[in-house]
Amino acid sequence: MRYSIFKRALIGKPLKTSELGEQRLGKLKALAILSSDALSSVAYGPEQIIIVLSTLGMIAFWYSVPIGFGVLILLAALILSYRQIIYAYPHGGGAYIVSKSNLGKNAGLVAGGSLLVDYILTVAVSVSAGTDAITSAFPQLHPYNVGIASLLVILITILNLRGITESASVLAYPVYLFVLALVLLIGVGIWQIVSGQIASNLHAPIGAAVPGISLFLLLRAFSSGCSALTGVEAVSNAVPNFKEPEAKNAVHTLMIMGFILAILFTGTMFLAYWLGISPKAEETVVSQMAAKILGRNLLYYFVQGTTALILVLAANTGFSAFPLLAVNFATDKYIPRMFLNRGDRLGYSNGIITLSVASILLIIIFRGQTEQLIPLYAVGVFIPFTLSQTGMIVKWIKDRPSGWLFKMMINLIGALITLTVVVIFFITKFSQVWYVLIFLPIIVFVCHRIKKHYDAVGEQLTIKAGDETLPLEGNIVIVPVAGITKVVENSLNYAKLIGDSVIAVYVAFDRESEKQMEENWKEWQPDIRLVTLYTSYRSLLRPIARFIEIVEDKAIEEKYTLTVLIPQFITKKRWHDILHNQSSLLLRLYLIYQKNVIVSTVPFRFKK
Amino acid sequence: MRYSIFKRALIGKPLKTSELGEQRLGKLKALAILSSDALSSVAYGPEQIIIVLSTLGMIAFWYSVPIGFGVLILLAALILSYRQIIYAYPHGGGAYIVSKSNLGKNAGLVAGGSLLVDYILTVAVSVSAGTDAITSAFPQLHPYNVGIASLLVILITILNLRGITESASVLAYPVYLFVLALVLLIGVGIWQIVSGQIASNLHAPIGAAVPGISLFLLLRAFSSGCSALTGVEAVSNAVPNFKEPEAKNAVHTLMIMGFILAILFTGTMFLAYWLGISPKAEETVVSQMAAKILGRNLLYYFVQGTTALILVLAANTGFSAFPLLAVNFATDKYIPRMFLNRGDRLGYSNGIITLSVASILLIIIFRGQTEQLIPLYAVGVFIPFTLSQTGMIVKWIKDRPSGWLFKMMINLIGALITLTVVVIFFITKFSQVWYVLIFLPIIVFVCHRIKKHYDAVGEQLTIKAGDETLPLEGNIVIVPVAGITKVVENSLNYAKLIGDSVIAVYVAFDRESEKQMEENWKEWQPDIRLVTLYTSYRSLLRPIARFIEIVEDKAIEEKYTLTVLIPQFITKKRWHDILHNQSSLLLRLYLIYQKNVIVSTVPFRFKK
Repeated sequence: MRYSIFKRALIGKPLKTSELGEQRLGKLKALAILSSDALSSVAYGPEQIIIVLSTLGMIAFWYSVPIGFGVLILLAALILSYRQIIYAYPHGGGAYIVSKSNLGKNAGLVAGGSLLVDYILTVAVSVSAGTDAITSAFPQLHPYNVGIASLLVILITILNLRGITESASVLAYPVYLFVLALVLLIGVGIWQIVSGQIASNLHAPIGAAVPGISLFLLLRAFSSGCSALTGVEAVSNAVPNFKEPEAKNAVHTLMIMGFILAILFTGTMFLAYWLGISPKAEETVVSQMAAKILGRNLLYYFVQGTTALILVLAANTGFSAFPLLAVNFATDKYIPRMFLNRGDRLGYSNGIITLSVASILLIIIFRGQTEQLIPLYAVGVFIPFTLSQTGMIVKWIKDRPSGWLFKMMINLIGALITLTVVVIFFITKFSQVWYVLIFLPIIVFVCHRIKKHYDAVGEQLTIKAGDETLPLEGNIVIVPVAGITKVVENSLNYAKLIGDSVIAVYVAFDRESEKQMEENWKEWQPDIRLVTLYTSYRSLLRPIARFIEIVEDKAIEEKYTLTVLIPQFITKKRWHDILHNQSSLLLRLYLIYQKNVIVSTVPFRFKK
Repeated sequence: MRYSIFKRALIGKPLKTSELGEQRLGKLKALAILSSDALSSVAYGPEQIIIVLSTLGMIAFWYSVPIGFGVLILLAALILSYRQIIYAYPHGGGAYIVSKSNLGKNAGLVAGGSLLVDYILTVAVSVSAGTDAITSAFPQLHPYNVGIASLLVILITILNLRGITESASVLAYPVYLFVLALVLLIGVGIWQIVSGQIASNLHAPIGAAVPGISLFLLLRAFSSGCSALTGVEAVSNAVPNFKEPEAKNAVHTLMIMGFILAILFTGTMFLAYWLGISPKAEETVVSQMAAKILGRNLLYYFVQGTTALILVLAANTGFSAFPLLAVNFATDKYIPRMFLNRGDRLGYSNGIITLSVASILLIIIFRGQTEQLIPLYAVGVFIPFTLSQTGMIVKWIKDRPSGWLFKMMINLIGALITLTVVVIFFITKFSQVWYVLIFLPIIVFVCHRIKKHYDAVGEQLTIKAGDETLPLEGNIVIVPVAGITKVVENSLNYAKLIGDSVIAVYVAFDRESEKQMEENWKEWQPDIRLVTLYTSYRSLLRPIARFIEIVEDKAIEEKYTLTVLIPQFITKKRWHDILHNQSSLLLRLYLIYQKNVIVSTVPFRFKK
């Protein structure tokens, strides 16, 4: 099969199931894979805060310092909360599992459904932002934005289909380089400030009175900054992907990630304030900072390049997390079972492909301008944050392990803060986030419908003690024939073998061919009954279907099964297929789906 | 099935085969259906001549009179030749049949293949020209040219799928109205000239010396005018579509059409010359003439409107002729057999749909600017013209009926003239017509390959006297099982009924499930042999395929057939299908196409 050669070249040779362990993540690789989403937010989080403040002029910029602290506190609360979640749920404790097991299935569906949609948004938003960075550098590529973004998603998809460790090797370096670049930038910046190379009058002093300032505006700025915290939950979902001891490694990774994120966020936030940088439409805050501190030299391009790269790679977090969450959903029968299947390379290919297709669709629909989706994406993260913290509170109260009160306090603080953020989002950015009020109920409804179906199916498939199967007395075989040929002979031989009663059926479009067929048949196969069906119309399906209905009634009465034999030409060359009537295919589909008969496909192989 | 309700609303209820006769064409309706292509050429034929002459200035316009006469002579020769062809081939004597039966199959394929492609060009060119006429009247529609043209093709397709008589009723009036409009225009014009209302000094006198005139230019002008003669052959292809007596009615229709075409062509050619009309990019010659003679009043819009309409409807000639020619090709096994099937409404739906799709593709590829295709289209008509005339010469010489010498002379003249036109096309417009030198050989080659395949198939299907079929000794049934469920029970019951030996096969991805299955099976079905296949990879297909290969060898040895039972879930609601693994579908396709086994699909119907 040529298809499989192509597939193999693309995603590599199939792996043995036993190689699964080897695909597990070490801490350093996990950091790269799972943190690019969170770390990349540094590239736009501080900027989002300043954009909101800039509506009041540069004098208001000092508010970015307290707001930044607020975000840092939020980050600390999240990291501590998730640390507890990982230990409590070492088999993967995403918001879905935690909410479901403590708050009930509907809370779980809201949390998980919201995350599933969010991972799609992550991919679309991050890849679009990365593409913007690339096409800003090479403006002649700008008309191809959508194409480039889609291509990047496809590239990431292929890497993920190849398997998670291999993709980590490829994707790890840019994350390390990005961290290196920003640490360098921040370090040089601080040194320049300390050594007095930077004028200290660039920024408004902290505490300056700002005319027109309002709580609403500050909250809006704060919620914008919260978009920098998306991606923090990725580690807790991926615990089973870690090398043993899974939970411990995961917590370490989470702590390292939180630490790095805190440093980078604080550093950029502070430098942006100190240097008095205003947001510009054509240049990002990070770019302005880098240009001021480093000058427009090779180092500047290093910062810009790694920023662009990590934005694109942030999409990979979605590719790590979405399939695992989908497995949880599928295990609970809330989404189709196919999300449970591992592919040849042991990744959950169906989840990977679904995510890829959905995010490419989003990119195409929004023509690559997915920035408008950022608030939606942020609120879609904070809803599950809140639910999982609340779930943990309930858990501590129920289980009461030693020190539960302290642990509960941590989660209580986390829950309150994240709930507040959600409320702030709905108050300050309602026009951009109201969609969740529509699609979350739809997701919950559909998931329940799917589960109901699977439960009904399971019920119907189970063999119960009292069940007696009806004994089958015999088999009636119907052979539709188009003439007197070897194909028909072939089918009749098989029919005689498996049938207690064989009926050949011929559909005649005119009286003449009907008569002739009957005569020829009598000579050729006098032992087999031929039924000719004359039709005044041009369709084969209807007369055969009607005949089958008649025979069916009789078969049920006598406890006979009904089998229809349909020959299938197997051509020597694939293109020959279009030369043969595919009416047998239609007939087969019709009989299987519409009539209660068994359809046997008898291949007839052409030798040339 | 909802699909069929939609289909019925679109194309009407199925017709009985016996209603076929009623679908035949009377002369008047045939004229409308078959002549719109030929008659519509009047809208652009004269203009094409003047455009070429205008490169030398207005003084050269008098040459359009002799050139027009040349075209008229050519028309007369064609009509007389085709009259003879219709009588000689009353069962439909298109260029394909005539060339094939007298000059051999390759000549037939060249003639017919060239016409098949030409009908596609007819549809694309005519509909695009008609759309241009419409969007010239309503410039705000101009950006939607391609969409409008495609929509018109789809409309004509639906009319044709409904059946030929019904479409005739709809399409007849515009043709009559167009003829009426042009006759009116020409009549008023002549009357104004005779009554002296038009100045006689608008045109250069016939015979005036033209500096720079060359034979090449005159030939180019002549060949451009020949595009007005495309469509003349449509009648001879459609003879079997006429009411009885078919041949006589067809000849009458042909003569009437030739007569009308001659009058309209001469009239417009003469008036254009007499009024001294120069071609303009933004206004057609017919429009200028109508404006001068009638003034810009309601009558003018009547002329313009019917012209636009007939151009669109000219496409319908293609829809009448293409499916019939395709039937001839398919009867001779040169193209897929599906072109022989009549649809529910007794039209050759596959031909109609193929033509529709191909022409819409052309319109999209050329973005509605299909004028560049006109020369290609014209040469594609004159090649079969030449071949069929030549074929007729051969026929007269062979058959020698009474008066054959005179009849042969007519066809000889026809052949010489049309051959000359082809040669002129290649000399004067090579850059636009060289494609035929590529695609005609390809068509001939592909047709031969298809015929070779069908012949080989026929050979393999025929039951010969000496053939003895191998007796079948028994049937081995393999049942792939996924667990212990009612579906499996169902399949096993059927397997026991039809098989002399039943083997259940279970694919295990780990040793534990393998062991457990074996134990459970022993308790549940101790009489049926269970084979467990352990695989280290993730694919079901390979282990099952390998097992089948092993059993197959044994089966062949013992003269047993091999049947694989595959269960198929039939869900209560269509959307439930996506909730079930479609791996059974893949397995079925793989087994039928790759392995020589019989595949039985056993439906399992969910009740909820």
